Amino acid sequence: MKKSPQRIIIENPEPMVSQGEFPAKALQGDHVEVEADIFIDGHDVIHADLLHRKTGEKTWLRKEMIPLPNDRWRASFPVEEMGKYEFTLEAWIDHYRTWLHNFIKKVDAGIDIPIELQNCAKFIKNASRNAGGRSKEQLEGFLQIVGDEKLAVEKRIDAALNPDLGELMSVYPLKKNPIRYEKDLMVEVDRKTAGFSAWYELFPRSAKLDGKTHGNFRDVIALLPYIHELGFDVLYLPPIHPIGTTKRKGKNNSLHADREDPGSPWAIGNKEGGHKSIHPELGTEEDFRMLVKEARKQNIEIALDIAFQCSPDHPYVKEHPEWFVKRPDGSIQYAENPPKKYEDIYPFDFECDDWENLWTELKSVFDHWIDQGVKIFRVDNPHTKPFRFWSWVISSIKEKHPEVIFLAEAFTRPKVMHKLAKLGFSQGYTYFAWRNTSWEIKQYLTGLTRGKERIFFRPNFWPNTPDILTEYLQSGGRPAFMIRFALAATLSSNYGIYGPAFELVDNKPREFGSEEYLDSEKYQLRNWKLHDKKSLKGYISRINQIRTENSALQSMRNLLFHQSENDMILAYSKQSDDKGNTILVVANLDPFHTHSGWINLRLDELGIQSAESYQVFDLLGDSWYIWSGPRNYVELNPGISPVHIFRIRKKVRTERDFDYYL
Amino acid sequence: MKKSPQRIIIENPEPMVSQGEFPAKALQGDHVEVEADIFIDGHDVIHADLLHRKTGEKTWLRKEMIPLPNDRWRASFPVEEMGKYEFTLEAWIDHYRTWLHNFIKKVDAGIDIPIELQNCAKFIKNASRNAGGRSKEQLEGFLQIVGDEKLAVEKRIDAALNPDLGELMSVYPLKKNPIRYEKDLMVEVDRKTAGFSAWYELFPRSAKLDGKTHGNFRDVIALLPYIHELGFDVLYLPPIHPIGTTKRKGKNNSLHADREDPGSPWAIGNKEGGHKSIHPELGTEEDFRMLVKEARKQNIEIALDIAFQCSPDHPYVKEHPEWFVKRPDGSIQYAENPPKKYEDIYPFDFECDDWENLWTELKSVFDHWIDQGVKIFRVDNPHTKPFRFWSWVISSIKEKHPEVIFLAEAFTRPKVMHKLAKLGFSQGYTYFAWRNTSWEIKQYLTGLTRGKERIFFRPNFWPNTPDILTEYLQSGGRPAFMIRFALAATLSSNYGIYGPAFELVDNKPREFGSEEYLDSEKYQLRNWKLHDKKSLKGYISRINQIRTENSALQSMRNLLFHQSENDMILAYSKQSDDKGNTILVVANLDPFHTHSGWINLRLDELGIQSAESYQVFDLLGDSWYIWSGPRNYVELNPGISPVHIFRIRKKVRTERDFDYYL
Repeated sequence: MKKSPQRIIIENPEPMVSQGEFPAKALQGDHVEVEADIFIDGHDVIHADLLHRKTGEKTWLRKEMIPLPNDRWRASFPVEEMGKYEFTLEAWIDHYRTWLHNFIKKVDAGIDIPIELQNCAKFIKNASRNAGGRSKEQLEGFLQIVGDEKLAVEKRIDAALNPDLGELMSVYPLKKNPIRYEKDLMVEVDRKTAGFSAWYELFPRSAKLDGKTHGNFRDVIALLPYIHELGFDVLYLPPIHPIGTTKRKGKNNSLHADREDPGSPWAIGNKEGGHKSIHPELGTEEDFRMLVKEARKQNIEIALDIAFQCSPDHPYVKEHPEWFVKRPDGSIQYAENPPKKYEDIYPFDFECDDWENLWTELKSVFDHWIDQGVKIFRVDNPHTKPFRFWSWVISSIKEKHPEVIFLAEAFTRPKVMHKLAKLGFSQGYTYFAWRNTSWEIKQYLTGLTRGKERIFFRPNFWPNTPDILTEYLQSGGRPAFMIRFALAATLSSNYGIYGPAFELVDNKPREFGSEEYLDSEKYQLRNWKLHDKKSLKGYISRINQIRTENSALQSMRNLLFHQSENDMILAYSKQSDDKGNTILVVANLDPFHTHSGWINLRLDELGIQSAESYQVFDLLGDSWYIWSGPRNYVELNPGISPVHIFRIRKKVRTERDFDYYL
Repeated sequence: MKKSPQRIIIENPEPMVSQGEFPAKALQGDHVEVEADIFIDGHDVIHADLLHRKTGEKTWLRKEMIPLPNDRWRASFPVEEMGKYEFTLEAWIDHYRTWLHNFIKKVDAGIDIPIELQNCAKFIKNASRNAGGRSKEQLEGFLQIVGDEKLAVEKRIDAALNPDLGELMSVYPLKKNPIRYEKDLMVEVDRKTAGFSAWYELFPRSAKLDGKTHGNFRDVIALLPYIHELGFDVLYLPPIHPIGTTKRKGKNNSLHADREDPGSPWAIGNKEGGHKSIHPELGTEEDFRMLVKEARKQNIEIALDIAFQCSPDHPYVKEHPEWFVKRPDGSIQYAENPPKKYEDIYPFDFECDDWENLWTELKSVFDHWIDQGVKIFRVDNPHTKPFRFWSWVISSIKEKHPEVIFLAEAFTRPKVMHKLAKLGFSQGYTYFAWRNTSWEIKQYLTGLTRGKERIFFRPNFWPNTPDILTEYLQSGGRPAFMIRFALAATLSSNYGIYGPAFELVDNKPREFGSEEYLDSEKYQLRNWKLHDKKSLKGYISRINQIRTENSALQSMRNLLFHQSENDMILAYSKQSDDKGNTILVVANLDPFHTHSGWINLRLDELGIQSAESYQVFDLLGDSWYIWSGPRNYVELNPGISPVHIFRIRKKVRTERDFDYYL
């Protein structure tokens, strides 16, 4: 027979990732909302506390939890610093409140009063034993009245029910056998950028823009004002290292490279160096550090691509042949996806006998670039390397550098993507590029924002990448680019584009049926006319500005879809935590035709009374409307502007108030 | 740095209750379906096995798992015996299949053949090392061909791709570092009755039926043929022990009992004995054993009520005053729900200092009745006793008597009910009595049959109990009784009624607004006219017969709702596992008015092609219909028959086949 039972049950705490094996994610300044099922047999009153602290600190801070319906309890705690926090839950039977609950009913019914006053006196005695100073005096004062059988019963009841006594009893609770949740759960706190960022991907070697001369970091510095005007705050560069020559790929991924072909930046390493070196044509380490510094002046952070693979010419191949898989003929196994061969790429063997040295060396690649001022990494294909490698390398780095942000480029199966997020990646690429219809978008976003992944997976939405020119963009042209941009930037708080291909509406695929760009920058320089009049620069700048000015767009989990009677029209809103900022996006998903129809807003969720009128201001155009009730009419011509981004403002109530938004 | 990684991840296995703390439930003869997420970085092929055994056995049995979409894997294992089974999962990288997968592509593309044949030879060598006898010979035969560089390449490829080789390679797999799921999970297997039962509750003291003379076990024996004709297989008796006299309740729960008032059977114990004794007016131990025996002859099991509480006259009160809570004046605390007092009842103090002896004594109550042949217990208010008591007492009993079934009478909050089910109760009462509308029924049943509780909580549906005469039954009269009976008996595989009050359509409440019966048998004898013409006996018999003859109705999780265009008409189906038996129930939920309308069947889920005609036979009436397509018309007059119970049969395809159902 087990020891006499602790009767309270604490179950299903949230947030909890994989039974507490991994931390949930939060941002600096967040209030982490904690919930749990806490219940007991019978009818005793429970007291529950949330215990929380920054990991490493000795003292737990306490916060009393509030009961919700259905035995669920809630409390929240603030997280101000980067790094790990931990929390757990504690509960006990509040015998005093249990008694008080019944006592009040008995007083009303006029039964058992003398005996219950005796019980009350016992409780007060108990509390006063733990109290000191003024509190002890007060408790003893109450005890004298409640416990004195010579006094009038009414007077004693009044004292027993005095709110000041209740207050004191809470401060000195009778806390017998408190039960603690069996685990301490973790929250990893990142800086704000991990949750709100706009990325711009650029090949530095095209930064001369003429398509002929190899660009360098100084040319990128010259482009910073342009990127700043567009409104991006992360500038992500594909690998900047020396590029292999063996089996180098030519234009459009041809197997034969001409002499002037620069090769794929992902075929990393040649005799001039590997993952810690800079391709000489891009500049020096000093140039790179200057780029980092100049970017920062314009509030832009440089993000680097970390692709753990080697060209056959990488120094590692000679120095550490044991880090690669051998074929039966003794040669090193190149990457392949039969029947495709990638002979310009050697993958590492993460399970080789010398794996510890390999892993340590790879970690030192991150360390090297962190020392150069880089705090954001886009990691290439992490899903083809072992999970435990990432778990180890990310946690080791974040221990010293909690400010570092890792974006996983894992376009793979959902569970693998989730695992990478759980074990430490701060953000992940998503399937957004392939979600085009209303149904697809709602389905996918509902998973991301309401599914269990919401507490560990931070999506980053890319309408295009150097590898992905979607059929939607290919066929839909400029309106399609506008629609997809607005969706990426307003559905997700983190998003990015690969430019200038995006803003210049480059929609030519290598061939029909392919998602590869024609004349892809992966294999050649490109000539970009940044000031072409078809450029979406103004549109992009405006939407990035709207994102910055409207805190509702800086979160993801606050997404709410509204019903639309026309399937081609998608309507969704976001509201800031303080409810002071509400954005409603209405998008025509058809790049070819004008669509109109009725949308039905969930006014209750927006905090609008259904009888109220309210104003919707189109932040993209100049128009504004007075709407009333849930059902409203919209019409969008994709050739002009396929999207409304409305700010909703409740109509003010008196005629005198003229402090309108405009 | 951790040890070099095991790369496969095994997560989210099902069935798993509270992270494996408690067993999932199954029935003898079930095939327990096990699923888990099993995945790996990259593209290696995984082999996964389900390991299972009866608890106590040494050897694990193995079954290869089948991959489903989205990295989910599945296999099942049969459970034939009562008691606990355990299972877990094992997976490893199938290097041979990974290689084979690529080899086939390479053969198609005509690349790398010689080198891959060398690889193949290595795999065969490896396998033949583990093989013996004929298999070894066969493997060596293949090796001679595949490995012989002098032979024609085509011949070697043929050998490498020979299915017999594939077969042999599966038998002797290259199993490096298999990973096991971190826990062994449990399944508790009950006998069939735990999952399929029809209960009849009867007060033996009314079994003389005249409302005047105290009935006894011999009178109950005389009623067995009646109960058997009704079609019930569990006869549940309220407490049969001596009843206290102190503070005895009179008719209609009056505080003053007349001399002839028999008292509440739940006020257990007087000088003639307690929980192990029989109320002398009901008969002797021998009479009781005869009842058990005679019932069994008619395929009826006796279920007893276990109510762990005492009347003030119970022998325990004198012998073990330490098992009860004292009030400040030294008297024993009676049950109360202020301002209500239940002075005829003393609750036990499960946390008293002498709790071990108390718990042991209470367990011996179950043991006593098990020795008398009782294998089913209805447990009164288990939610007011500690969870760990139940966990301990049920598991101790089931260790020796896995055939014992416990029904929890816990009409309390959902999480408490679920906890009781997790820790061992075989069945639980539900909120069914208060779910009347389409929306309520669908909502509630979807939770029970699709929610996570489906693997541990077996519902038992009661349209009435001695404590519950619902407003629906009070107001709706005979049609209401018919509707609620059909719903209980076809929605749930376990259900029960409190009779003869139910079949005789007793719908008079103590007063308006109360759910108590007027002249409740809890406090007096009743006069029952079993052969009154308003009796629902025929209707009940027929539905119980339908349940017995249609295996679709013997499960719960197979419930499927169909859309109905009239909210007063509810439509749902059940299909047997082998899909050979399909029942469709269409019920008019309005006891007052005829309703008609269109229902839309989910034909795909029923395995009917939408172009097919099919027959629906009303098993309650004599009518049958030929339906076609999903949309069909129904009309139900509650005064005649408020419910169709259709058996669906696909229309046979040739005119010659005349083997119709009727």
